[in-house]
Amino acid sequence: MSSIVIINGPNLNLLGNREENIYGNISLDKIKSISIDEAKKLNLNLSFLQSNNEGEIIDLIQNAEKAHKGLIINPAAFTHTSIAILDALRAISIPKIEVHISNIYQREEYRKKSITASAVNGIICGFGYLSYVLAIQAIYSLIEN
Amino acid sequence: MSSIVIINGPNLNLLGNREENIYGNISLDKIKSISIDEAKKLNLNLSFLQSNNEGEIIDLIQNAEKAHKGLIINPAAFTHTSIAILDALRAISIPKIEVHISNIYQREEYRKKSITASAVNGIICGFGYLSYVLAIQAIYSLIEN
Amino acid sequence: MSSIVIINGPNLNLLGNREENIYGNISLDKIKSISIDEAKKLNLNLSFLQSNNEGEIIDLIQNAEKAHKGLIINPAAFTHTSIAILDALRAISIPKIEVHISNIYQREEYRKKSITASAVNGIICGFGYLSYVLAIQAIYSLIEN
Amino acid sequence: MSSIVIINGPNLNLLGNREENIYGNISLDKIKSISIDEAKKLNLNLSFLQSNNEGEIIDLIQNAEKAHKGLIINPAAFTHTSIAILDALRAISIPKIEVHISNIYQREEYRKKSITASAVNGIICGFGYLSYVLAIQAIYSLIEN
Amino acid sequence: MSSIVIINGPNLNLLGNREENIYGNISLDKIKSISIDEAKKLNLNLSFLQSNNEGEIIDLIQNAEKAHKGLIINPAAFTHTSIAILDALRAISIPKIEVHISNIYQREEYRKKSITASAVNGIICGFGYLSYVLAIQAIYSLIEN
Amino acid sequence: MSSIVIINGPNLNLLGNREENIYGNISLDKIKSISIDEAKKLNLNLSFLQSNNEGEIIDLIQNAEKAHKGLIINPAAFTHTSIAILDALRAISIPKIEVHISNIYQREEYRKKSITASAVNGIICGFGYLSYVLAIQAIYSLIEN
Amino acid sequence: MSSIVIINGPNLNLLGNREENIYGNISLDKIKSISIDEAKKLNLNLSFLQSNNEGEIIDLIQNAEKAHKGLIINPAAFTHTSIAILDALRAISIPKIEVHISNIYQREEYRKKSITASAVNGIICGFGYLSYVLAIQAIYSLIEN
Amino acid sequence: MSSIVIINGPNLNLLGNREENIYGNISLDKIKSISIDEAKKLNLNLSFLQSNNEGEIIDLIQNAEKAHKGLIINPAAFTHTSIAILDALRAISIPKIEVHISNIYQREEYRKKSITASAVNGIICGFGYLSYVLAIQAIYSLIEN
Amino acid sequence: MSSIVIINGPNLNLLGNREENIYGNISLDKIKSISIDEAKKLNLNLSFLQSNNEGEIIDLIQNAEKAHKGLIINPAAFTHTSIAILDALRAISIPKIEVHISNIYQREEYRKKSITASAVNGIICGFGYLSYVLAIQAIYSLIEN
Amino acid sequence: MSSIVIINGPNLNLLGNREENIYGNISLDKIKSISIDEAKKLNLNLSFLQSNNEGEIIDLIQNAEKAHKGLIINPAAFTHTSIAILDALRAISIPKIEVHISNIYQREEYRKKSITASAVNGIICGFGYLSYVLAIQAIYSLIEN
Amino acid sequence: MSSIVIINGPNLNLLGNREENIYGNISLDKIKSISIDEAKKLNLNLSFLQSNNEGEIIDLIQNAEKAHKGLIINPAAFTHTSIAILDALRAISIPKIEVHISNIYQREEYRKKSITASAVNGIICGFGYLSYVLAIQAIYSLIEN
Amino acid sequence: MSSIVIINGPNLNLLGNREENIYGNISLDKIKSISIDEAKKLNLNLSFLQSNNEGEIIDLIQNAEKAHKGLIINPAAFTHTSIAILDALRAISIPKIEVHISNIYQREEYRKKSITASAVNGIICGFGYLSYVLAIQAIYSLIEN
Repeated sequence: MSSIVIINGPNLNLLGNREENIYGNISLDKIKSISIDEAKKLNLNLSFLQSNNEGEIIDLIQNAEKAHKGLIINPAAFTHTSIAILDALRAISIPKIEVHISNIYQREEYRKKSITASAVNGIICGFGYLSYVLAIQAIYSLIEN
Repeated sequence: MSSIVIINGPNLNLLGNREENIYGNISLDKIKSISIDEAKKLNLNLSFLQSNNEGEIIDLIQNAEKAHKGLIINPAAFTHTSIAILDALRAISIPKIEVHISNIYQREEYRKKSITASAVNGIICGFGYLSYVLAIQAIYSLIEN
Repeated sequence: MSSIVIINGPNLNLLGNREENIYGNISLDKIKSISIDEAKKLNLNLSFLQSNNEGEIIDLIQNAEKAHKGLIINPAAFTHTSIAILDALRAISIPKIEVHISNIYQREEYRKKSITASAVNGIICGFGYLSYVLAIQAIYSLIEN
Repeated sequence: MSSIVIINGPNLNLLGNREENIYGNISLDKIKSISIDEAKKLNLNLSFLQSNNEGEIIDLIQNAEKAHKGLIINPAAFTHTSIAILDALRAISIPKIEVHISNIYQREEYRKKSITASAVNGIICGFGYLSYVLAIQAIYSLIEN
Repeated sequence: MSSIVIINGPNLNLLGNREENIYGNISLDKIKSISIDEAKKLNLNLSFLQSNNEGEIIDLIQNAEKAHKGLIINPAAFTHTSIAILDALRAISIPKIEVHISNIYQREEYRKKSITASAVNGIICGFGYLSYVLAIQAIYSLIEN
Repeated sequence: MSSIVIINGPNLNLLGNREENIYGNISLDKIKSISIDEAKKLNLNLSFLQSNNEGEIIDLIQNAEKAHKGLIINPAAFTHTSIAILDALRAISIPKIEVHISNIYQREEYRKKSITASAVNGIICGFGYLSYVLAIQAIYSLIEN
Repeated sequence: MSSIVIINGPNLNLLGNREENIYGNISLDKIKSISIDEAKKLNLNLSFLQSNNEGEIIDLIQNAEKAHKGLIINPAAFTHTSIAILDALRAISIPKIEVHISNIYQREEYRKKSITASAVNGIICGFGYLSYVLAIQAIYSLIEN
Repeated sequence: MSSIVIINGPNLNLLGNREENIYGNISLDKIKSISIDEAKKLNLNLSFLQSNNEGEIIDLIQNAEKAHKGLIINPAAFTHTSIAILDALRAISIPKIEVHISNIYQREEYRKKSITASAVNGIICGFGYLSYVLAIQAIYSLIEN
Repeated sequence: MSSIVIINGPNLNLLGNREENIYGNISLDKIKSISIDEAKKLNLNLSFLQSNNEGEIIDLIQNAEKAHKGLIINPAAFTHTSIAILDALRAISIPKIEVHISNIYQREEYRKKSITASAVNGIICGFGYLSYVLAIQAIYSLIEN
Repeated sequence: MSSIVIINGPNLNLLGNREENIYGNISLDKIKSISIDEAKKLNLNLSFLQSNNEGEIIDLIQNAEKAHKGLIINPAAFTHTSIAILDALRAISIPKIEVHISNIYQREEYRKKSITASAVNGIICGFGYLSYVLAIQAIYSLIEN
Repeated sequence: MSSIVIINGPNLNLLGNREENIYGNISLDKIKSISIDEAKKLNLNLSFLQSNNEGEIIDLIQNAEKAHKGLIINPAAFTHTSIAILDALRAISIPKIEVHISNIYQREEYRKKSITASAVNGIICGFGYLSYVLAIQAIYSLIEN
Repeated sequence: MSSIVIINGPNLNLLGNREENIYGNISLDKIKSISIDEAKKLNLNLSFLQSNNEGEIIDLIQNAEKAHKGLIINPAAFTHTSIAILDALRAISIPKIEVHISNIYQREEYRKKSITASAVNGIICGFGYLSYVLAIQAIYSLIEN
């Protein structure tokens, strides 16, 4: 049974009661349980993590290569500022997907560009919790191929 | 049985023998048949179209609202230049998804920004033909909700 | 009896049921009939056209010089992107007016600049359907002088 | 009988003997009398003012709301620099129109953008003295509606 | 008994019935009386002035040095455009504070930068009428030290 | 008795012996005791914190909402780079104030813009330790209203 | 006998009576007959085409690979805006040359950069009709090598 | 006996006790008397004026053409912001010279560009009071030729 | 015996098996032992540290002043984004050197500028592990002088 | 028998063993002899020069007008930086052509713009040594007309 | 008897028959003799030099300090590009003046900024040959003081 | 015994009495003798050159490949402007190092970017004369490997 990891960036722990017009009213716990269900269907073991700390996220990414077959990351605000996370993603060679809950192209100018996206295989954004479900299906396909 | 449409932009008809290092060696016909198969699984009728002509693509988008429950578009080069396609997408209210075969963040600077993306529900890019499969699953979910 | 032409750009055929907060709820057909009425008062024959296709619009502009004494254009999205339409407008020497239904200065940054406007005699924007009526009065004056 | 005001910005008092290739050779006095004639036809009382002083123009705009049903402004050079006039225009709620004698899109780069235009209902530019006549007709329509 | 002056820039005389969602519904007269009360508590004599005219404001600043121990200025729209006011502020050496009613960082891009702020001791913005009260307390402290 | 929190960003622990020409020679401990004194006068309980770690600061902001009635933050260098702190501030709904010891408009170009300021109620900067005192008075007023 | 194609972009059909100070007074028909003569000398069969339509031009480029040994294109206004034509040119592997009648470096700022030029072998511009003659000689050499 | 005028912009009345490291410690009155002496030597009548008000300065420039044979202007801060003064200078046809006391190229970035300079015959800057003396000699030569 | 510290930024712990074409195939452990050897030759005690965490790195820098005579830092990705590390470096007054393994001028545009470099004495980059050796020699010289 | 001159800029003397993937492996001497052969066919006397020195190149251009009927220049790196060479080219009135061996649009961003090109009749680039041959044919035509 | 030097940059040797609409039809020899006459009146020995070579100009500037009491330079095209000349001017401490024949503010965008001007005492431009005469008078005054 | 060359760019001959606060008070002759001593220790023959002339420097670089095993260059002002020197450095394949006496990141904005640095192996800057000593040690290592 393969294992994958989902890493969530800063402030995503507040999901559901933070700027609901943008992020919806579903909590991160709910997304976690939906993701675990989806992973199970595909016979994947899922680690679901969150951190507000850039350094910790880098550690999680670095460690992912040994423990997991695939990585899904929602870098949240770090999407737009962190070259260090970009470098960490570049340094590992398992399949990697970037997800976003909201459509970043409908938001502030500075949220339209992703610094981290060039280091992943693909990007899925704008589908709410469904972004996670699709990403799990996609990472499954990338691992299988 | 619901119907959806997939609209492919300029030069995608050449897929498979054009810049294979970027786009892979799978033809648009092959993607079409994979997409139809995927749609069938979800009990969706699928219209799969391609045009090199911005005006025609606008017509296709405008007509999509009456004939279809959902729209998937790969605007190709028009992604980065066409405000007219952006306006057409804004003007219709069925679920809409933008897909790309390649990861646009790994390419030339001018391909990193999408003008059209702010008018769709979500974006899926970088997964090769799998981008289409995921988009069909996503549009299905958006239609169902 | 002099003849003039009004050329409408992409997505204006959807007027009235597209982003009503910006464009109002009046249809292009209604604007057409108001325009024909206004033209008649001034003893002008009016051709009222629309196309989503940049190439077709260029053809219409090129042909306008032979058939008409004046040209009014609402280039819509092409206002902000089409050097080819700018060149077509420059190439003909009858009076030319650019109109817009909405006030482009109250919209997105990229809609605030007009590429085509430097090739026309004057610009009228922000008055809804009245922009067309004023443009017909203005083109009449330009033709008379 | 309704009353409207036309406010002219800096250096417009020199019209007719200043850069005639751009502004034509018609004087501001002549435009005033043409404007008064046009207003009379529409049964409008017209106040026609000019000032070289940004502060005075702001005072005139602020006072316009009480005394007039509509305002037409040619901010001249202040079009491109005055946020203070923009704010004054925003602060009053009667119909407002910005006019220019020349086509600002055919001039220096810094004259192509209007800071004040986002605060008015509509803009008319490039028609010489006719810009004023059209603006009077337009303000009449805006007041009537 | 020390004396201070508060100088208010263009359109602030309209406070209370201008864009209330941004500036609130309190009038400048009300702010004046609140300010005078606050000043009295600190045994300060307060001059409370307003002008729509950049030149007049420069005169007021230049004269402040002789007549007052401290200066508070809300340059309003001139905040973002006036190097001349910046120079006037630089030229006097009494304590100086810039205040704003609204949080300029929540507004249009061009209102986010202050040209005048580099010439004052400190800036207080975003607190509504309270910005003035805090500024009076601050100027009192600066004068005392 | 209400409680408020003051969060100090990176390197502020070195205050007093770091670039004294900019930040003065008062230590953070001294500012802490002045702040506690000021808070006491207003019957406010004050938590005074400092961290060099962006992730920790985000945690502190997130936790502030439950434990405190108001938040004052000096994000120091993170002011100019951290979208993650911006998001954390946006996510909580108690009154929030940004303070700076120095006048950021008198410093390097990159210190003149604040990324975090759009998420707070108001900003106070340039008054040295007095910025903190004024912020405590302001937060008190915001809480009371 | 080898065959080559020359594709002319928007508004070039008006050559000879459009902005003669820039493009000269020679018609496109005349350039066509000069080009055919030059091609004959080199024993080349020449197809000479023009379209105002970006989509059509993309079709022509895509088809060129099968029918021709070399391609010469004057993309006119599309030179500066069309990533779609750039992509079409990149997708074919026969020798390709970009020509311009005028020296684009002596014109408006936005005409100084070519988006399409990176996809061709070489560029010839500024020689009037002679640009075409030189391009035919060059394409002949490229085909021969 | 010919007459010339020297117009001094905002804050120049404070010369001599304002930022002496930049402007020196000579007062405007002293420069006036030096200028009058220099003018006398050349048999020129000299009007020496100062205003902090942009509108007044425009009036002075407009009036200069009737009363004077030459104009010297130190627009001070308006050098960098006033298109209205640029327009006023363009509108008059007597010889015009721009002077600055300091070398504007040694100052802040925004002081390095002059908006008004394109409307004058020549510019003299950086020589302290001597800039005025040289300008009087230069205007004399321009009038004589 | 003097002591120095070398602080390595994010992802440098992966050296040797990360993007070898850029960073070479030597591990950080190997560089550590080479550095210790070099330090010993110069009779320097060496502390060799690494962290993926910006906050921790700031702590390390702040502490360096008490414990060490010199500091060498390879800020890695933080070179290009961290004003907080810049501030920490500025706050300490022992000799400081910035090193990079790769030549940052041969890499992506955003890696060509260093935010932190203005706070150190000197920069050494592009020499692979040798950058560290040279930096140790340089810091020795700076300490000795 | 007419005479023409070809001036080659810096580092072109190294052609053939410098960055062969960009410039090919043909030496400048070889291009010289090919050029002389081509010139002879057209009955042209050819001077073929090279210099690494901007000043010398300016001298060569200035002298060309007296001694030659036409000038071909490959300014190499000076293409992108030298206003002085631009001015020299502008100052002479014989036919002038700019050539490049490589296609400058396929190279670094800073090589895509030519400062010198606005001063020549036409530009030929991207054809390797053939650029020179075509330029000789073109200069012959320009001289003849 | 003091000595001064005037250094003229590239292409100024062509003065009088180069772009006469900009530079006038007076030759550099004529300017030299006018300058020598002017210098004589002030009892100054004058060295009048010209070079097309940046390196030579740097040598001339470096040598000026020993041989001359003042330096006047017209850097021509190097004004806008040469940091090396800027550095040379900074390195010498005799009075220095930059002159231009034409008004650089009325020319191309890239000629409006001077890189060298920050290293001289003052700038005189736009007066034709008179710029030199005024500069000689100015340098005389600077030397005397 | 291997030979290396050190090439010094414009104005470095003035070292020691030019802007001492930036460059220190050590002369280039002194640096030369220190460098020769250092080279001797490593059994390297050292050529130490200086030129104010870009063309000469290009010649020196081109010649270095035949005569020397390694090259050290301080391009001084040309660092920031010379693509021609960049090209010369690229064209030779011996080890190359760029050095600077001052820390270019502590200086004017335009001195912070190096155009030439992408063509060398490594960069050493900010150590005063020690930059040269370190570069000699580094070039020795590069040659040895």
